Amino acid sequence: MFIQILVILILSGCTTLDQPKRFSMSPSEALSKATKDDWRQPANRNLVYFYFDKDPVIFELAPDFAPKHVTNIRKIIDSRFWENLYIVRAQDNYVVQWDDPNDLAKHYWDKKKIKIAKKIDGEFEVPLEKLKNLETLSSNDVYAPSVGFFNGLPVGFSKHENRAWLTHCYGMVGVSRSSERDSGNGESIYVVIGHSPRHLDRNITLVGKVLYGMDKLSTIKRGTKALGFYSNKKDYIPIKEVRFANEIPKKQRINLQVLRTDTPLFKDYIEARKNRKESWFFRPAGQVELCNMDVPVRVVK
Amino acid sequence: MFIQILVILILSGCTTLDQPKRFSMSPSEALSKATKDDWRQPANRNLVYFYFDKDPVIFELAPDFAPKHVTNIRKIIDSRFWENLYIVRAQDNYVVQWDDPNDLAKHYWDKKKIKIAKKIDGEFEVPLEKLKNLETLSSNDVYAPSVGFFNGLPVGFSKHENRAWLTHCYGMVGVSRSSERDSGNGESIYVVIGHSPRHLDRNITLVGKVLYGMDKLSTIKRGTKALGFYSNKKDYIPIKEVRFANEIPKKQRINLQVLRTDTPLFKDYIEARKNRKESWFFRPAGQVELCNMDVPVRVVK
Repeated sequence: MFIQILVILILSGCTTLDQPKRFSMSPSEALSKATKDDWRQPANRNLVYFYFDKDPVIFELAPDFAPKHVTNIRKIIDSRFWENLYIVRAQDNYVVQWDDPNDLAKHYWDKKKIKIAKKIDGEFEVPLEKLKNLETLSSNDVYAPSVGFFNGLPVGFSKHENRAWLTHCYGMVGVSRSSERDSGNGESIYVVIGHSPRHLDRNITLVGKVLYGMDKLSTIKRGTKALGFYSNKKDYIPIKEVRFANEIPKKQRINLQVLRTDTPLFKDYIEARKNRKESWFFRPAGQVELCNMDVPVRVVK
Repeated sequence: MFIQILVILILSGCTTLDQPKRFSMSPSEALSKATKDDWRQPANRNLVYFYFDKDPVIFELAPDFAPKHVTNIRKIIDSRFWENLYIVRAQDNYVVQWDDPNDLAKHYWDKKKIKIAKKIDGEFEVPLEKLKNLETLSSNDVYAPSVGFFNGLPVGFSKHENRAWLTHCYGMVGVSRSSERDSGNGESIYVVIGHSPRHLDRNITLVGKVLYGMDKLSTIKRGTKALGFYSNKKDYIPIKEVRFANEIPKKQRINLQVLRTDTPLFKDYIEARKNRKESWFFRPAGQVELCNMDVPVRVVK
């Protein structure tokens, strides 16, 4: 009897050592438990339909992190300025960028009698205390003291400094600038299309994230000049139309919902990604890196 | 005099506090100091020219990490088997994969009287002590206890376990498998085209890295079925030709050299990437993540 129990104890001990920690659900199982309250609908004035082809790229603006830039970008979109611009750069494993190669901006705003900010000081960080419902990701990070999610967006933060910032993960949308902190105003924009260039965090203003159609940007033919700029003007890709969601005819609207990141379900989803249940994984990682935790987006018919 | 010195001390103290640590050279300045001994020429039998278009994708095999798989892959390439296959999958921000959708393998090897391994146990790790000239990257990592570079390849390792493994960074080449450890043999291959899926490390066999033409793979039209498989066979992209470097006519060869990673110059290059000198960076990261440290490759005319 005693020996039997001992054998069982030893065996179960060995089993515990050999078996990696696994969550009770796979990521898709965790996600399948989401109710309608686990999803949120982005606001119309944050949701931008960006057409350079038949189907749109749709991104969500993040006024919580870059209020001045987002205000300016809304004016720029309302004025149709971007619709005169081109994608001028596609650098492999880095970014695509649209810009104003003919320096249209020089006269555009005066002509149209629209007041926009020509310079905005970089909005690289916000006070951490501003972010209610920040979900902490209890994983290491190479670049930030702490990381997590706010409203579906990847965030780095420092409790010590009371600062938080958006991070350069795949699909993040940022405001191009030259050397000065205030040299970007939203006329020119870049989108991350490769491995996350996190060294840019806290150095340049991020203003949102692509929710739909990333593959349209990621498959753009790369430029051959330095930094992926197109060597020939005829390679420039014209931007056809940029509209807020409420301006899109209802039939063409794509009803996007983003998984809420301030819920128990999202915590389960993180655990499911860290400690994979599926037998395909011989060694679940036990960790998940911030930019590897893409927040699910769904299209509701 | 004393007050002057005090003022100088206070000022220099303040300056030190305000100024981030910056390396004496930018990454490109560090790189410009490389002599011919800082570059290495990959061996012909490790260098694979992969054509599905006019220009090749060129990758380097890594027999140090997956000797059995590399031996099998050499036989597969020599037999021209891959030249009957197709790229059947392109999943955005993840991988492209070529495979054998018509199950040609069933009769191919018998017919050709070629002996290849149908099953190879996963070569997920090697003994750490096997890797001489491993360059340690003194940065945190989310997935591995330690990280570094061996022969230009990104490596995770554990001194405690005496184990080392290749990591799933952008451009890494791996052997597809199904659920079993030994279910891949190199007939089907994937390449990472997005943010590094490091949770795959130590779970699947990596066999090399793309050195040239990554943009050909990264811009492939994405598949619309689950996991990025093409929904229609007519979307499959046929593989035209796969050859080792020495089989390519000399005029068409691209003379690639990879920066050596076991040199003082590479250490400088790492420091230059961590602590950016350029004034564009207001806040140099002080760290660099393993997969953000792409090892330079040059074409020598």
